Order: sequence, then C-alpha cells, then structure tokens
Amino acid sequence: MPHPNDSSLRSFIDVDPASDFPIQNLPYGVFSTAANPTQRVGVAIGNYVLDLWELEQDSRLDVGPLGVFSAPSLNPFMALGPKVWAKTRARISELLRSDHPELRDNKELRDRALVPMTEVTLHMPVQVSGYTDFYSSKEHATNVGVMFRGKDNALQPNWLYMPIGYNGRASTVVVSGTKVKRPRGQLKPPTADVPSFAPCRRLDFELEMGVVVGQAAPMGGMLTEQQAEEMIFGFVLLNDWSARDIQQWEYVPLGPFLAKAFATSISPWIVTREALEPFRLQGPEQSPAPLDYLKQDKPQNYSVELDVALRAAGANAPASISRTNFKYMYWSSVQQLMHHASGGCAMNVGDLLGSGTISGPEKDQRGSLLEISWNGTEPVELPGGTKRSFLEDGDSLVMRGWCQGDGYRVGFGEVEGTILPAE
Amino acid sequence: MPHPNDSSLRSFIDVDPASDFPIQNLPYGVFSTAANPTQRVGVAIGNYVLDLWELEQDSRLDVGPLGVFSAPSLNPFMALGPKVWAKTRARISELLRSDHPELRDNKELRDRALVPMTEVTLHMPVQVSGYTDFYSSKEHATNVGVMFRGKDNALQPNWLYMPIGYNGRASTVVVSGTKVKRPRGQLKPPTADVPSFAPCRRLDFELEMGVVVGQAAPMGGMLTEQQAEEMIFGFVLLNDWSARDIQQWEYVPLGPFLAKAFATSISPWIVTREALEPFRLQGPEQSPAPLDYLKQDKPQNYSVELDVALRAAGANAPASISRTNFKYMYWSSVQQLMHHASGGCAMNVGDLLGSGTISGPEKDQRGSLLEISWNGTEPVELPGGTKRSFLEDGDSLVMRGWCQGDGYRVGFGEVEGTILPAE
Repeated sequence: MPHPNDSSLRSFIDVDPASDFPIQNLPYGVFSTAANPTQRVGVAIGNYVLDLWELEQDSRLDVGPLGVFSAPSLNPFMALGPKVWAKTRARISELLRSDHPELRDNKELRDRALVPMTEVTLHMPVQVSGYTDFYSSKEHATNVGVMFRGKDNALQPNWLYMPIGYNGRASTVVVSGTKVKRPRGQLKPPTADVPSFAPCRRLDFELEMGVVVGQAAPMGGMLTEQQAEEMIFGFVLLNDWSARDIQQWEYVPLGPFLAKAFATSISPWIVTREALEPFRLQGPEQSPAPLDYLKQDKPQNYSVELDVALRAAGANAPASISRTNFKYMYWSSVQQLMHHASGGCAMNVGDLLGSGTISGPEKDQRGSLLEISWNGTEPVELPGGTKRSFLEDGDSLVMRGWCQGDGYRVGFGEVEGTILPAE
Repeated sequence: MPHPNDSSLRSFIDVDPASDFPIQNLPYGVFSTAANPTQRVGVAIGNYVLDLWELEQDSRLDVGPLGVFSAPSLNPFMALGPKVWAKTRARISELLRSDHPELRDNKELRDRALVPMTEVTLHMPVQVSGYTDFYSSKEHATNVGVMFRGKDNALQPNWLYMPIGYNGRASTVVVSGTKVKRPRGQLKPPTADVPSFAPCRRLDFELEMGVVVGQAAPMGGMLTEQQAEEMIFGFVLLNDWSARDIQQWEYVPLGPFLAKAFATSISPWIVTREALEPFRLQGPEQSPAPLDYLKQDKPQNYSVELDVALRAAGANAPASISRTNFKYMYWSSVQQLMHHASGGCAMNVGDLLGSGTISGPEKDQRGSLLEISWNGTEPVELPGGTKRSFLEDGDSLVMRGWCQGDGYRVGFGEVEGTILPAE
C-alpha cells in the first residue's frame, strides 16, 4: 500500500491543485449539518467533508471502541495513540484513492459519507484541556524588546536558554468564524494618573500555530525528543488576540492575564503531524547550544507558508499585511513540549500549545500589528488609503497557512475573526 | 424548618466540639471505599462520610437527574445551580438532625449511607476546568516586594487597582495526601554565568484558599457582585507549591510557569459558601476606592483561622510555623471573580481560583517560607533544633483552616503534602 503522503496519489474526488485539502493532507475536524446537527468527526477532502462516523457505523473504519467519531471533539480518537492515528489515516487514504473501488463505486455510501463543504458547520475540533502560549520567535521577541527596552537589551537573558511560555486561558479558545467582542479592561496610558475601565484601544492579533497534544504524560515525569514528538497529533492556525493596552498595565509581575483571555481563535482543521512530514526542515541554529533536556537530534521545524490579511471595516476584500513562514521559529514545538513537561507538569490529551507570534527576519514578515505598525508609529496602509495601527470595530482578520508540495499543497484552511464593538 | 447554619442544631451522630465537621458545616467531597471503589459524592459529618449516592438511590435526595452523586466529581451537582445547592444542603441537614427520625431510626439505611471516615479514600472533589492564581494579600505582596525591590517600591503600581492574577496549570492540581516530587528546572543563581538543569533548591509552599466556581459565565460578559457571589460554590485550602529558584530565572516577562506547574494541592472537602455565611466580615479598607466594576456593597471576606505546620523529615510531629486568617485578604474572592470576567473571559463550572498567599500583618502570620525565612536569611527553627529556609526531601507540610463558632467550628480539614526527592 502506498504511503498516504505519496505525492503521486490521486483521489476519485476532483481536487483543485490550489485546494488546501488534497488526498495527501486529510485533516481532521468536527462538523455538523442542517440535516444532522450532531457534532461528529470528519476529514476534509477537496470541497467535501468525509463523515467518519458514517464510515465507522458502516464498519469501514475499525479504530477500536465504536463511537469514537460520533464524539463532538477529536479527544477520544487522539487518546487512542499514534499507531491508531497512522493506521486510520492510511485507511482513509485508501478509501479515497482513485484506484480503490470500495467507496468510489459505492454510490449509496458515498452519498451518506461525503458532505459538500458548503453544507457543513465547522466546530471546535478539540476540547482544550490546557492552553499554553509560548514566545518562541526570536524575531518577534527581538522586535518587542527593541520597542520597549531598546536595541541593547532586546532579548531577556533567559530567552536563549528556554522556550519562554505562560499558561493561557482554555475557556475562550474558539473556532474560526466566532466573532470577537472588543474587550474592556483597565487602561492606564502614560499620560493618565490613574487607570480607567474602558474598551481596549490597542487591539491586536498574533499570528501563531497551535500544537494539538494527542497523548498524556504523567505528573512528575520528563519527555525525550521521541516521546514529545509522538505526543503531537497535529497543528492548527492560531490567532492569539491581544489587548496591548490592558496587557501593558496588568502584566507586571505575573504576566499577561485578561489581555489575552477574551479570545483565542483556531482554524477548524487539524493537519496531522504525519501530513507535515514531507515539509520538515532544520530550524535556525541555536546558540548557545540548548541544555541537554532540550536537545533535539532531528530537524523539528516545518515549512508552512503563512499569510495574514486584514479586511478593514467596510472594505470588500481582505488585503495581505504579512507573509511569513513557520520555519523561522527558534524553539521547535518538540522543544516546547519537552520544556513544558521537564519540571513534572502533567500533559493531557487536548492540550493546546501556541507557538508564539511568528515573525520572520524581514519587515513584511511580522506577525502582529504591534510590530507591523511599530507600536502605532508606522500605520499600515490598506487598499483605498485606509490606515491601521490596531484593529477597529468591524475589521476582519484572516490567517491562512499551507505547505507547498510539487503540484499540490497541504493546507490549513483559515482562521478568521471579526471584531465586534465593546458593549 | 431551621436554617442549616443554626448553631443550636445537633445531629444524631456524635460530633466532638473540636471536629471540623459538625452539622453546621456539611462539606462535599468525593470518596471511595475498599468495599466499593466507585468514586462518589459524600458529605462529612463528624467521623463519618454520608454517602449521597446511597441516599439518592433510596429517593431521599431529589436533585433532578438521577446519578448526580455517582459522579467522580462535584461538577454535575454544581452545574445545577445555587437554588439546588441550598435545597440539598437543607435536606441533608434535616436527614442528619437529632430530632428527625427518617435516617436516625432507619438502621438499614444508616448502615449503607454512613461510612466511617477511617474506611474512606478521599479523591479530587472537583474536575478543575481552569486554575487561576491571584496575588491578593497586601502583606504578602509587600513582603515579596521589599525583599526583591526594597521598601520604597514594594508594591507594583497596578497592585492597588486590580486583583493581580495569572493562569495556573489545572493538570497538576491534586488532592491532599498526594506526594510531591521535587521539580527539576533551569536554575541560574546570581553567581552562575549560565543556567543549569537541576533539582530545585528553594522549594516552598504558599498558604492559600481556593474558590470553587460552581456556575458558568459566558464569553464576552461581565459579572455583578451578586452574580459573582452566587457562582461561588465553596472553598478549599490550597497549597500552591513553588520553586523559587526556577521562578526567579523564568518569570520575566510572561510570569511564573514551570515554577508553579509541578503541583498544587487542595483539601478534599469543599466547604460551601453558605456554611461560611456566619463568618462573613468586612475586609481591609480599600484605598484608592476600587473602580466601579470592582465595587462591592457587602462585606465579602470571611474569618477563617489558618495554621501551617511543618513536619521536618525524620520528626515525629508537625510543628506550627504560621498562624494567620483569611480575613486579611485585600481583594475578596468576589472581586477576583468580577475582575476575571470583566474583559470577557468565559468562566466554567469547576474553575478554581487561588486567593494568593495569605500573609497577615504580623511576622508569625506569613504564608510562605520565602517570607518566614526572609529569603533564606532567617531560617525558621523547629523543635529539636532543626532549621529550615526552604523545604527538604521528606518534609511534610500541613495546612488547616476553620471558622470558630460558639461551641462548634466549621472546618476545612487539612491539605497535606510530603516532598519526594527529584529523580
């Protein structure tokens, strides 16, 4: 049987070469339809969703306990472990192949199991157990450091020694398309003597990728590189919405709290680690060399092209404001996970790890408006002359990501959010 | 029917006046026995646990959907809301009253439903959805500030305007009695040029109380004082174990992470907010006056006597090293909850809010070894001449708390943890 990543594979379903969802991808999500509002697990293929619960009931997928795909999240499936993930993906690939008649020639089953993408509502693909947000782009950390502490002290002394991170708020991780209300909070501009409680005036996005952890690790343990890697089920796009003015006043000394707790948006399709395998590459050189517990022997970065587009309130279409790549990350997801567990912290199925804002070395590769507008001093100009330093009510932010293969691409779809005014 | 807080109530079960669990308390927990290993909900009364699942099956408790008390956490019961909480507590009080024959005179049911405390194993009483840790004792924040920044800049400028807090790690909240392995992590003492990965050398406890949130609040909303208060199901004792040396190196700029993620211990019995009602009092004066969204019209503090005892490795008995009171907290739990939701952060059933380390105004009222030993410069002397600046392997830390009534006390039991060596 050919490997599901084989670039020569074709599906009996027509897939446009520009589609994010060729047979080499097969990302998992949770969907429902008007006809069947039960939230269940599906896989994206071209312009269709393959209903895994239909296939499971029809005994076409044997993953163990019946009902894994009738769950409203991937958590039960992820809990089954990497061998089941690989076996299931291989089987789904087989069922969708143009040279495999089983589903191709079974019209009755096809009609039940293949749902046009236009008919589905996509839901949160994972029940988020814990949400951790890292800060692992050296370019981003440097940009922020230069802005707030000057060029000579841009990176904090600990930054080159560990993937700095903090616990985020899992309760407000939402799926793409969820509208985001402008938060209110305590603001104290430098000119004010005392803070006031008011709507955020410096609302920002952060372009990140999220790791979906699919296996648990016990309290008190540590992880090897291989263990950490095998716990990673897949990746999503992640927008870590940020209220810069709330953050500035609240974050000393315990870190960001409400400035990051009002919403975090993720894309609905989890692209599996296995599907990204052909796009694995070596990350930036790490100097000083990581301490032993953070050493990795394999290249642990991935080349994922990333695009951020802003549709200003009233505009017809989004305009690209940043183009960068996941490959620039200094600390890899595997190193983040090894660090996370290194002190004995238990990891759970459904943990979500944000990579940290992904900025590249060039000016047009910055992953937040804070950096793009250089703290508001260089507003970005959009088509029609509209300018933005930070997000305004009615603005929509769209992030897209994809790995470019030869004649196909393994894509993430998009994560979109529109800003509603504060109440 | 008399109110379950009525101090004249007596149970047909003999309860020592020094017991934490008279009929005026009725705290909820999750337990199992050797004979019946199913984790289920019970209430502590004297030296017994009242098995609520037995009562529910026997149609003595009608809380709605059958099976609420056969769950391995209080979450399903808490989700039913404050009216059901009050009704259920009143009914349990009635069933336990000395002048009510229903359970008193039903030996068969008593034998099934009353389990000697010595026969039970206590489990985590709540499935923790999110764990947030605050920093709301002015005395604690001041002590830490004086130690690290000097007397003139002890309190950060934001501290008096909001309950400063951060997201903790829910996956390692454990029940009393769980052993705590000394964490390893990156340490960089001032004398070292580079960090090393090694066992924590400055392992500490933090005396806190935890609020168990029993009702959800939607994303994007805010809470009034009354709404916040009614969401609080009850309180536990909480030990926020802390690795001071790991914390010192990692916490800039995103706050504590692994230094607090290896373990947080809570007491097994949730004392309900209703049971604490007779011990409600006015907290310290707040100056400057809180912003409108943090204003409270009612006294929102509680008088809970707190004792911390340390049994040094090899010693026979714990020795008290701190005596303080929950009443000293500057920001109340209700203010913490109002602040938490104020930016639109969703709250969930099972959220746990740590109060922050509880220190009082006096030297012997400090809630951490960091403060008691003044950053290691004044080790505490224990019976037999043993000294401690921080915790050593084999040490046990025991926290107890109670509200002193007239002739009875509403107690929390204890939260205990023993330090295991790092691997």
